[in-house]
Amino acid sequence: MSGDLAAALQRTLGESIPLARAMGVRVLEASGTRVRLGLPLEPNHNHKDTAFGGSLYSAAVLAGWSLLWCGLRERGVEAHVVIASSAERFRAPAEGDFISECAAEPGVLDAALGALKRKGRARVRLACAVSAGGTACLEFDGVYGLLAG
Amino acid sequence: MSGDLAAALQRTLGESIPLARAMGVRVLEASGTRVRLGLPLEPNHNHKDTAFGGSLYSAAVLAGWSLLWCGLRERGVEAHVVIASSAERFRAPAEGDFISECAAEPGVLDAALGALKRKGRARVRLACAVSAGGTACLEFDGVYGLLAG
Repeated sequence: MSGDLAAALQRTLGESIPLARAMGVRVLEASGTRVRLGLPLEPNHNHKDTAFGGSLYSAAVLAGWSLLWCGLRERGVEAHVVIASSAERFRAPAEGDFISECAAEPGVLDAALGALKRKGRARVRLACAVSAGGTACLEFDGVYGLLAG
Repeated sequence: MSGDLAAALQRTLGESIPLARAMGVRVLEASGTRVRLGLPLEPNHNHKDTAFGGSLYSAAVLAGWSLLWCGLRERGVEAHVVIASSAERFRAPAEGDFISECAAEPGVLDAALGALKRKGRARVRLACAVSAGGTACLEFDGVYGLLAG
């Protein structure tokens, strides 16, 4: 199941979001409680040969989006997931390939699905982190909107 | 001067940041007090055929970075510019080509250059905005670090 979800997520990211393809996003792990994405430095580097801030942000926002996408599929719920607001701290440059991770207890999405059912929309707050070679590079705090599909 | 700066910035973005190239960033206006970047929807779309949140973020963070890059060049100061922290609100989806803008009074950078000279590093806070067809899509508040080059 987890492997099927990872393959479906990889397909969805690759087909729907050209920038995810340009960034070389690979789904390493995918479920409604944990997502890990791997990205190569090469297509994401900046003028200093570390990762471009926009790539680190994109990796983080996609990890959170992917976790909700997986959680909704696991529950058979149709909904759109959009980013509503976010805040980040860049802790250190990513000097090589990097990994973006998001984890959440199942209850986080379950609580939001109650609101989604009652009101047709809900919000979910998720923390994501990007690291490179064990060094924490980005802390990301995102609020995602769920809209009845 | 302004046209020269715009051409130099376009070259720098295109050569140093592959993702800026993949996103199709075009420099519309460039100075140390005002930058406007134009981006086509096509390479930046998401699963809903509006702009991917990571593209909107990247457009905003690049507008602020570009403004500082221009301001430093106008003053003949060598320094590295990096994003340190940021916060965003996504106001509406971008349903077509979009524009990212950043503006700041010259005093904002001048004040930071005093600190840069004394301490070898400084911070500058900038607001950027992304819009599509006159609709405000993203409000971005970024703190950039300047490091003696």
